[in-house]
Amino acid sequence: MSFFTLRLAEGGVELLDQRLLPREERYLLLKTGEEIARAIEEMAVRGAPAIGIAAAMGVAVELARTRDENLAEALARVCARLRATRPTAVNLTWALGCVQGELRGMLDAGAAPDEVREAARALAQRLHDEDVAVCRAIGDAGAPLVPEGSQVLTHCNAGALATAGYGTALGVVRSAAREHRVRRVLASETRPFLQGSRLTAWELTRDQIPVTLITDSMAGALMRRGEVDLVVVGADRIAANGDVANKIGTYSLAVLARAHDIPFYVAAPLSTVDLATPHGGEIPIEERAPEEVLTFGGRPIAPEGVGALNPAFDVTPADLVTAIVTEGGVVRPPLGPGLARLISR
Amino acid sequence: MSFFTLRLAEGGVELLDQRLLPREERYLLLKTGEEIARAIEEMAVRGAPAIGIAAAMGVAVELARTRDENLAEALARVCARLRATRPTAVNLTWALGCVQGELRGMLDAGAAPDEVREAARALAQRLHDEDVAVCRAIGDAGAPLVPEGSQVLTHCNAGALATAGYGTALGVVRSAAREHRVRRVLASETRPFLQGSRLTAWELTRDQIPVTLITDSMAGALMRRGEVDLVVVGADRIAANGDVANKIGTYSLAVLARAHDIPFYVAAPLSTVDLATPHGGEIPIEERAPEEVLTFGGRPIAPEGVGALNPAFDVTPADLVTAIVTEGGVVRPPLGPGLARLISR
Repeated sequence: MSFFTLRLAEGGVELLDQRLLPREERYLLLKTGEEIARAIEEMAVRGAPAIGIAAAMGVAVELARTRDENLAEALARVCARLRATRPTAVNLTWALGCVQGELRGMLDAGAAPDEVREAARALAQRLHDEDVAVCRAIGDAGAPLVPEGSQVLTHCNAGALATAGYGTALGVVRSAAREHRVRRVLASETRPFLQGSRLTAWELTRDQIPVTLITDSMAGALMRRGEVDLVVVGADRIAANGDVANKIGTYSLAVLARAHDIPFYVAAPLSTVDLATPHGGEIPIEERAPEEVLTFGGRPIAPEGVGALNPAFDVTPADLVTAIVTEGGVVRPPLGPGLARLISR
Repeated sequence: MSFFTLRLAEGGVELLDQRLLPREERYLLLKTGEEIARAIEEMAVRGAPAIGIAAAMGVAVELARTRDENLAEALARVCARLRATRPTAVNLTWALGCVQGELRGMLDAGAAPDEVREAARALAQRLHDEDVAVCRAIGDAGAPLVPEGSQVLTHCNAGALATAGYGTALGVVRSAAREHRVRRVLASETRPFLQGSRLTAWELTRDQIPVTLITDSMAGALMRRGEVDLVVVGADRIAANGDVANKIGTYSLAVLARAHDIPFYVAAPLSTVDLATPHGGEIPIEERAPEEVLTFGGRPIAPEGVGALNPAFDVTPADLVTAIVTEGGVVRPPLGPGLARLISR
């Protein structure tokens, strides 16, 4: 791949600033946990798996700059700060849980400060590398679901840019495209942040996978015209019963897919499944600033004084999901038991 | 009302340039049929009823500047030019048909040139004034469909700005709001041209009717959360069987409304009904330039070389429409016979 989403570098975390794409490819070098927390909040990096990894890297860089005697306190503080950045994606909580648990254990066991710092770095690197492997496994598991010559509709960006590389939904697309099954990807632009037009179109073009942009509002009409063979999206959190929180607009696509008898697939690592959340109604949905809807590139597009809603995610009930594609294989309904079985392995 | 959409003025047609709203309220003075044709093509004026009236005014201003001996030729030419501007809205064809038929008849009967010019002007003015009256009748007929305290979802702009005044879908909203039945209007922004955020939000704010913007992708999630009591939209053409062509995204909203048992109303003048088009599959759907999707305010939002689809309209089949609100009353299914009955009156 000709770009990377994020990596541990000397002196910090290097991270492609996704706010500037596709206009400009600029890498940020973030040197503190706070800088990484802000990059997550402001969506310089986004996508459930990617923000989990960014957070783990944030812990590593923060501990690297902390005095020996403050390590335990810094660990607790930076984890709390990073955890508070965005509420919906469970990967953030999951990754921070792994890292904090492991490092806290080492500190409690009296490990040497540099040993803890090294472990933090190694853990973040491992999460990164495992994520790429997981995405490839998701892609390969999902590729057979894509019939020859398919037009694949996807929403938002569940691609290399949302993960450590390869992508989840776009991992399925990449693996299917390698087998020449993809006629084209229909990328919905995904207002208000335009992850579809800015990110999905960019990374698929980079990989020479045919992509055509549509506005979010066109999906239904294209389905009715027979121009969508399947829908595949990512997930920010999957509840124990298989309900899926994902980018706002996903639920509408699932309803439309069902109305047109089109398969609706969710591609996500098992770390996205939150067994502690029984159903989608319990998933916290982030409400972002109305300005994202009311302005464009800093310029107002609505009259002054008008309000806007801006829920960043919605919940698709399990019964609208044809299957969930994970690194452990394809889970078909009933999704809850299927996911539980895979996770318990 | 503190603004007007278009009017016949001394020396031309005055028309609010809707491309500049809400940033700037600038009125254009268009002096030729060609200038008006371009204003329609470039969407300085848009909305099915409004472009019909603009076209009729275009004929009047063109004949006013034409020499006596060329009147018949100019009439045929300007009508053909105006008819070719946009294919989907039948009001354009309808208004031009009225005007051309009447004036052609006068010319054939040997009417004096100034008499024909005066008639063109009077016809355009009559279409304008009748449209306002028709919109008020639509609004008053539809108001009882809006329960007390309703949250009303609308798409695009079927408002005063899409008509000679008052609006069709927003006519229903205005009449219902006068009776204090509207808790708020949820306006979907309507990509790519943003008629929702730029126009609907603007004109409702002007009229002090509470309006909240959403992206097009939020509609399903809001319906699921119980935040939409009814949907009301306009129409660009209604086929004889009740299939409705309207702004792209309308069909998705109709499917979503059905899935949530929410009434889906279409508000339109009877001049929008095209008995010569048996069903929606026969309605020509305008495909506009991909640049409208790929750029924003002239700035690219997608990587170079990426294509986009840009159908400006879609077709909602009659069986998803709860009722059509016309100036002759509310038509319930079966829509085809109901519409035919009203028109034959």
